[in-house]
Amino acid sequence: MIINTDLKGNGYPIIIERGAINRLSDYLDLDRRVLIVTDDGVPEIYSKTVAGFCKAPVIHCIKQGEDSKSLANFEALCKIMLDNDFNRSDAVVAVGGGVVGDLAGFAAAAYMRGIDFYNIPTTVLSAVDSSVGGKTAINFYGVKNIVGAFHQPKKVIVDADTLKTLPKRHISNGLAEALKMSMTLDVQLFDHFKHGDPFKDIEKIIASSLMIKADVVSKDEKEKGLRKVLNFGHTIGHGIESVKGFEGGLYHGECVALGMVIVSPVHVREELIPILEKLELPTKVDCDAEKVFEAVMHDKKSSGEGIDMVFCPEIGFFKIENTPLDKIKEMIMEGIGK
Amino acid sequence: MIINTDLKGNGYPIIIERGAINRLSDYLDLDRRVLIVTDDGVPEIYSKTVAGFCKAPVIHCIKQGEDSKSLANFEALCKIMLDNDFNRSDAVVAVGGGVVGDLAGFAAAAYMRGIDFYNIPTTVLSAVDSSVGGKTAINFYGVKNIVGAFHQPKKVIVDADTLKTLPKRHISNGLAEALKMSMTLDVQLFDHFKHGDPFKDIEKIIASSLMIKADVVSKDEKEKGLRKVLNFGHTIGHGIESVKGFEGGLYHGECVALGMVIVSPVHVREELIPILEKLELPTKVDCDAEKVFEAVMHDKKSSGEGIDMVFCPEIGFFKIENTPLDKIKEMIMEGIGK
Repeated sequence: MIINTDLKGNGYPIIIERGAINRLSDYLDLDRRVLIVTDDGVPEIYSKTVAGFCKAPVIHCIKQGEDSKSLANFEALCKIMLDNDFNRSDAVVAVGGGVVGDLAGFAAAAYMRGIDFYNIPTTVLSAVDSSVGGKTAINFYGVKNIVGAFHQPKKVIVDADTLKTLPKRHISNGLAEALKMSMTLDVQLFDHFKHGDPFKDIEKIIASSLMIKADVVSKDEKEKGLRKVLNFGHTIGHGIESVKGFEGGLYHGECVALGMVIVSPVHVREELIPILEKLELPTKVDCDAEKVFEAVMHDKKSSGEGIDMVFCPEIGFFKIENTPLDKIKEMIMEGIGK
Repeated sequence: MIINTDLKGNGYPIIIERGAINRLSDYLDLDRRVLIVTDDGVPEIYSKTVAGFCKAPVIHCIKQGEDSKSLANFEALCKIMLDNDFNRSDAVVAVGGGVVGDLAGFAAAAYMRGIDFYNIPTTVLSAVDSSVGGKTAINFYGVKNIVGAFHQPKKVIVDADTLKTLPKRHISNGLAEALKMSMTLDVQLFDHFKHGDPFKDIEKIIASSLMIKADVVSKDEKEKGLRKVLNFGHTIGHGIESVKGFEGGLYHGECVALGMVIVSPVHVREELIPILEKLELPTKVDCDAEKVFEAVMHDKKSSGEGIDMVFCPEIGFFKIENTPLDKIKEMIMEGIGK
C-alpha cells in the first residue's frame, strides 16, 4: 500500500509493505554514498540489509535512548559525512525509532543545507507517527526538540515485519499515538480500537494513522494551525514525561495516554479508559503534580501567556484553545494521582 | 526603494533606504523578544539603535571574522534564546556582514525549527549579496558553509548610511560580487562599472545587484540550476581564499575577483581587468597553485567526478559546465602567478 503526502513540491510516498526492507532497490535510490543511522536497540540485521543495497554505505550506530538526540551526535553525523566526502547528491537513511529518525533527519537537513533523507521506522511509535511529517530535531540543554528543522523525507518505508520482534509494551506505546489521532480525527479508527483487537490489526492501524497524519501534514506542513491537533495529549504528556520519563519508567506513548485522560471531559474519559486498559496503557500516574506543571511551562517557553492546547469535546472532534496557565495547573492538580 | 522577492510562500521585501535604521518600527515587527547579533567590528551604535526599537532585546556580539561562523557560536546563540524564553513568535536580527548574517540566520532557522529572521547588512558585501537569498551556514572542520539551512529572512533593510564609515578596501570587496553578477547577467550594470564611478554610485549598484539576486533566487531558491550562476568566480576563488584568505591577507571579494580572471577567456579578461584595477581589486595572486587546487577539491567534496563551474563566454552571458578536475587544475596552474 502506498500513501502519498501532498506538500507543495515536497510530497513523498509512504510505502507500507511486509518484507519491503528486502526489496529496497525497488523503492529507494541507494546508488550513491549513504549514511545509515541506527541504534544499538535495533536488530543489526536491518541496517546491514539496508547497507547491502547501497553503493557506498556507512553505518553509524548510536546508543539507544533520548539522550542520543544531542548536539554532539548531530556534530558526529555531519563529521562522518564530511570525512566520507558526502556531497549534495548523497543520502541519509534512518533505521530505527523516533530518536534515530529525528537525529538523522536533522543531520540530513543541515548537511550542505539539506540532502536526501529516507526513513525506515522499526518501532510502532515511529511507524504510526514520527517517521512522517518532516519534523527533525535534537534535545538541547534538557529541552526536547528545541533545535531542529522541517525536512521532509524523500520516502518512508514501513515494513511491519520489522515490528514483529518488539516487546508488547513497545507496541502499546506506539498504539497510544494512533489512538490519539483517532480520538480527534477518525471515529472509524476509534471504533476499531473500541471493538477490535488492535494488537492483531497493527498493519491496518498503522495505515489508518498514516493516512490521517499525511492528510494533516499536507494541509499544514509547518504547524501554523491544523497540525497542532496532533499535539492532543502532548502538552501535559510531555510534562509527565519530563518528570517520569527516561529514567522514571514511562514511555512517550504512555505519557501521552495519561495526558489525554487528564484533558478529557468525563464522558470522553469514560470511553477512553477501557481502551487504554485493553492496550495495557496507564490511566493514572503517581508523581509530583507541581513538578509536572513546572515542566509544562519550561517546555513551552511560556512566561505569563497561555498555551495552545488541544481538547477532544466528543470522539471525532477537537478544539484548539489558548489555555491560561492557572487552568492548566488546575487540570494537572486534579488529574494526577486520581 | 523596495525590491520584492517572489518565493512561493516565502517572498519578502528588501528595503533600500538611507536612514532606515532610524525608522525600523515602520518596517519590522520588534514588539517581542529579539536576539540582535552583531560583531565587534560593527559600530556599536547600530545594534543599540535596533535594540531601542525592540520590546525585549538581547544583544549578542561575536568576534569579527570567519572563525566566528562556528558550531560553538551556533550553540551559544540557541542557548541565549533558550535562557531568555524565546518562543516561536520571537525573532532574530543580524546587524553586520556576511559572517553575522550566516550565523544568526542559521540559529534562527534551527531554533524551534525556525523563527523570524531580519537582516540588516552593514557591509557592501552583505548588502549586495549575502543578505538576500536565505543561505545560512556555519563552517565546520575547516570547510566553509558545510552545515546550514535555507531560511529566508522576513525582511532585509539596506541603509546605505551604515556603509559610509567602511574603509575603501571593504567597499571594493563588496563591489566584486556586484561586478560578478553584472558580468553574467546584466550588461547595463557592467557598462556602469566600465564607464561610471562605482564608488560614488554605491546605492545604485546595490539596488541593481539586489534586483538581479532577487530574480535569480526567486526562480531557483534551493540552487538546483540557475542559482549556480551566482557562483561565477567562486570555485577557484574559494580555493584561493582557503590558501590566502583569513590570515593570508585576501578578502572574499578579492578572491572572487581573482577567480573570475582565471576562468575567463582572453577577450573577457581584457574587459574585466581594467575594471578590477579601477576598483582597486587584485588581478593576480602569488600563491601555491597546487594548494589552491587541493582546496578546490576539498571544498567541493569532489572525488573523481567533475565540478559544475560557471563561465562567462561573453559579457552578459553565462554557461554552467561540469568541468573535469584536470581541466580545473590546468586553469589554476596557468592562472596563478601570471
